[in-house]
Amino acid sequence: MTRTLIIDTLKKTGRTVLLKGWVNSRRDHGKIVFIDLRDRTGLVQTVLTPDLASSLHPEDVVYITGLVKPRPQNLINSNLATGTLELEAQKVELISKAASPPFDMGGDKLELELPTLLDYRSLTLRHPTVNPIFKVQEVVIDAFRKAMQKKDFFEFQAPVLIPEIAEGGSEVFKVPYFGHEVYLSQSPQLYKQILVGVYERVFSVNKTIRAEPSTTTRHLTEVTTLDAEFGFIDSWLDVKDMAEYTIKYVIAAVQEECGPILAKFNTTVPIIPKKIPMIKLREAQEIIYKRSGRDTRQEPDLGPEDEREICRWAVDEFNSDLIFISHYPVKKRPFYTYPDPKDPEHTLSFDLLGRGTEWMTGGRRINDYDWLVKMALDRKVDPNKLGLYLQAFKYGMPPEGGFSFGSERITMHILKLKNIREASMFPRDMERVDIRLS
Amino acid sequence: MTRTLIIDTLKKTGRTVLLKGWVNSRRDHGKIVFIDLRDRTGLVQTVLTPDLASSLHPEDVVYITGLVKPRPQNLINSNLATGTLELEAQKVELISKAASPPFDMGGDKLELELPTLLDYRSLTLRHPTVNPIFKVQEVVIDAFRKAMQKKDFFEFQAPVLIPEIAEGGSEVFKVPYFGHEVYLSQSPQLYKQILVGVYERVFSVNKTIRAEPSTTTRHLTEVTTLDAEFGFIDSWLDVKDMAEYTIKYVIAAVQEECGPILAKFNTTVPIIPKKIPMIKLREAQEIIYKRSGRDTRQEPDLGPEDEREICRWAVDEFNSDLIFISHYPVKKRPFYTYPDPKDPEHTLSFDLLGRGTEWMTGGRRINDYDWLVKMALDRKVDPNKLGLYLQAFKYGMPPEGGFSFGSERITMHILKLKNIREASMFPRDMERVDIRLS
Repeated sequence: MTRTLIIDTLKKTGRTVLLKGWVNSRRDHGKIVFIDLRDRTGLVQTVLTPDLASSLHPEDVVYITGLVKPRPQNLINSNLATGTLELEAQKVELISKAASPPFDMGGDKLELELPTLLDYRSLTLRHPTVNPIFKVQEVVIDAFRKAMQKKDFFEFQAPVLIPEIAEGGSEVFKVPYFGHEVYLSQSPQLYKQILVGVYERVFSVNKTIRAEPSTTTRHLTEVTTLDAEFGFIDSWLDVKDMAEYTIKYVIAAVQEECGPILAKFNTTVPIIPKKIPMIKLREAQEIIYKRSGRDTRQEPDLGPEDEREICRWAVDEFNSDLIFISHYPVKKRPFYTYPDPKDPEHTLSFDLLGRGTEWMTGGRRINDYDWLVKMALDRKVDPNKLGLYLQAFKYGMPPEGGFSFGSERITMHILKLKNIREASMFPRDMERVDIRLS
Repeated sequence: MTRTLIIDTLKKTGRTVLLKGWVNSRRDHGKIVFIDLRDRTGLVQTVLTPDLASSLHPEDVVYITGLVKPRPQNLINSNLATGTLELEAQKVELISKAASPPFDMGGDKLELELPTLLDYRSLTLRHPTVNPIFKVQEVVIDAFRKAMQKKDFFEFQAPVLIPEIAEGGSEVFKVPYFGHEVYLSQSPQLYKQILVGVYERVFSVNKTIRAEPSTTTRHLTEVTTLDAEFGFIDSWLDVKDMAEYTIKYVIAAVQEECGPILAKFNTTVPIIPKKIPMIKLREAQEIIYKRSGRDTRQEPDLGPEDEREICRWAVDEFNSDLIFISHYPVKKRPFYTYPDPKDPEHTLSFDLLGRGTEWMTGGRRINDYDWLVKMALDRKVDPNKLGLYLQAFKYGMPPEGGFSFGSERITMHILKLKNIREASMFPRDMERVDIRLS
């Protein structure tokens, strides 16, 4: 008999089917045993004789043949997609015997401390409160690609191994390489700019790796970032507009495809008005000063508490969970960031903040070769180490810009998770690479 | 005025348009100058007065306003999509001045030695014989994802940093990591198997990194691999069939979307019959012996010349550019490969060969925990270093298998490139990571 997926039992009442999956939970009631069977489409209640059920325990892989029967009205479980029916088991085949899980995997919640959640990652990922996190992440990444393809962007694969870095920053891993040293890429920035000179509009889904010597709830050493870059812009606002289009596209896709997951996590997608509000950094600092009395007007950036305050303001003022902050100071941005001709101490760059933290960063870049070299030198970046990057500008580059965001960060904030490690399938940090480092 | 893309001039004869792009080539003819302008959609001939053209050189970025005019019948260029028209320039704006390229970028061919091609990668990628290679690669990767999504596979992001490897093999890079040592992933194999226990059907597009101490024409240290794995199979043939479906889907997409590129490279997609032929390794060796007199019947694998011979046989016998070879010996396959119960010295595994070399590898895996531990121990793989991997099997795993192929390798063979470095945008090998290592 061909396998029936659990969700398809809804179309097969009165018929005999073969289901394949895992024992999610077992409840013994004297002469009958209830097994919730789990497959990739969900759960269904199966009813077995104690004899048929004798060998079955949580996480066993089983094939069950049985009759799909409607449940009596008073036994319908409205929390379950298949709650209107159950399977009366006729035959059970034990395919793979599971060891006894060290904690209850069959409940609605999985209340484990983070280290335990990760020590047993291959098991805990199976829980219905864990695996949907990565369904959201899958939708975020796929929607990003679709948004870019609709705008005629070309997808490329950015390298992980890079030559001696030039962008500055000590947070980089070195790799011994055939008697030489190479580095792990922190960002596809230089490559996506090179490719504007080839394809005009490019995007990439990247593994980026940073030696974050930090154990905060929002940093990982390895993340999946989503990058876009494009040329022939008329203004840096074209870049901001493309970023706005992209984030709206991604959020709309999550809303459309992940409704039940959002409901399960007791959250909604961020509220986004027709136009996401945008203010300059200096304006934001004024607003923060007026609202909170905290004077950060001389600071070159927003601190975590500032980010939360200005996000609250955007909600109060515009009913928006998102806000663009623009015009960060030149000295706080990478050397290639385009200064505002009308305000040369500040840049034509932006961050998108959401629900209290940074989601995305972007801006216009300098496309003039000589200026770029000068800005690099000003920042003690050695042009000789900018290899292929400067070459792209030497041979003609249009006005261009782009943006970048992390798939874990946005997944975390959509689902309101407490720690970014929950939004990474196999999180890497100072203390853990699958196993705890000792 | 809004920018018109070059290809869209075909719809704008008789109208004044603004084109933006690069000077592809310049031809001076006394009182007029011809400039071929290039953007991401192609080339168009523009006609300028010497005055208007005075400052223009190859690779300059320019904005040209002008009138789209039909060409006289005898001047139509049938090699150019826009060959029926030209732009009569009225206004020229030089946006970004290019240095003089060290070789002619305006010709139909770019005849450079490989080291030069790569030393000037940011420039040479712009050539119309180079950038289309990565259009094909983009289609391969995108078609792979679509093929998998149609079969209800879940996309995940495999990690690059991995703990001390267990799979054996010395070809791995070590990374100093906060006082510890981690490794760069050679393959998402163990992770995709873990995730069969969660999502049943998974795929991933991966950066995989191998310390290949080799400078052959078919090895790189960093490649983009395409991986799939799925559970609840009835037989290893389900895995082979899914691999066959996938490669057919990918090739069909390249044929549909890359016709002009295939023509330009003077090639066609591989010929694939309704059913790709499949034979066992031992049968292949018999055939090779009969055809060539070369006796490799005791060898555990096919050598490069064997691969070419058996591919020729598949063309002769089945008019097929592709052939599956199955039943490789246990000792030549990783420890998790499923032995054939009827022939325990050989495995339920396969390679797909095409145009003389290996394209893809796959097979059924052992899903029984105890057996897997035993096979690991037999092969001197320390189960204690298999961390989360064995955990997945300990807690119930269905019968499963999967396959993997490299996007560079397949791009190389579709376009019949001579060296895999041509099929990697930024190839990394023993001697080069963007720049030559010295």
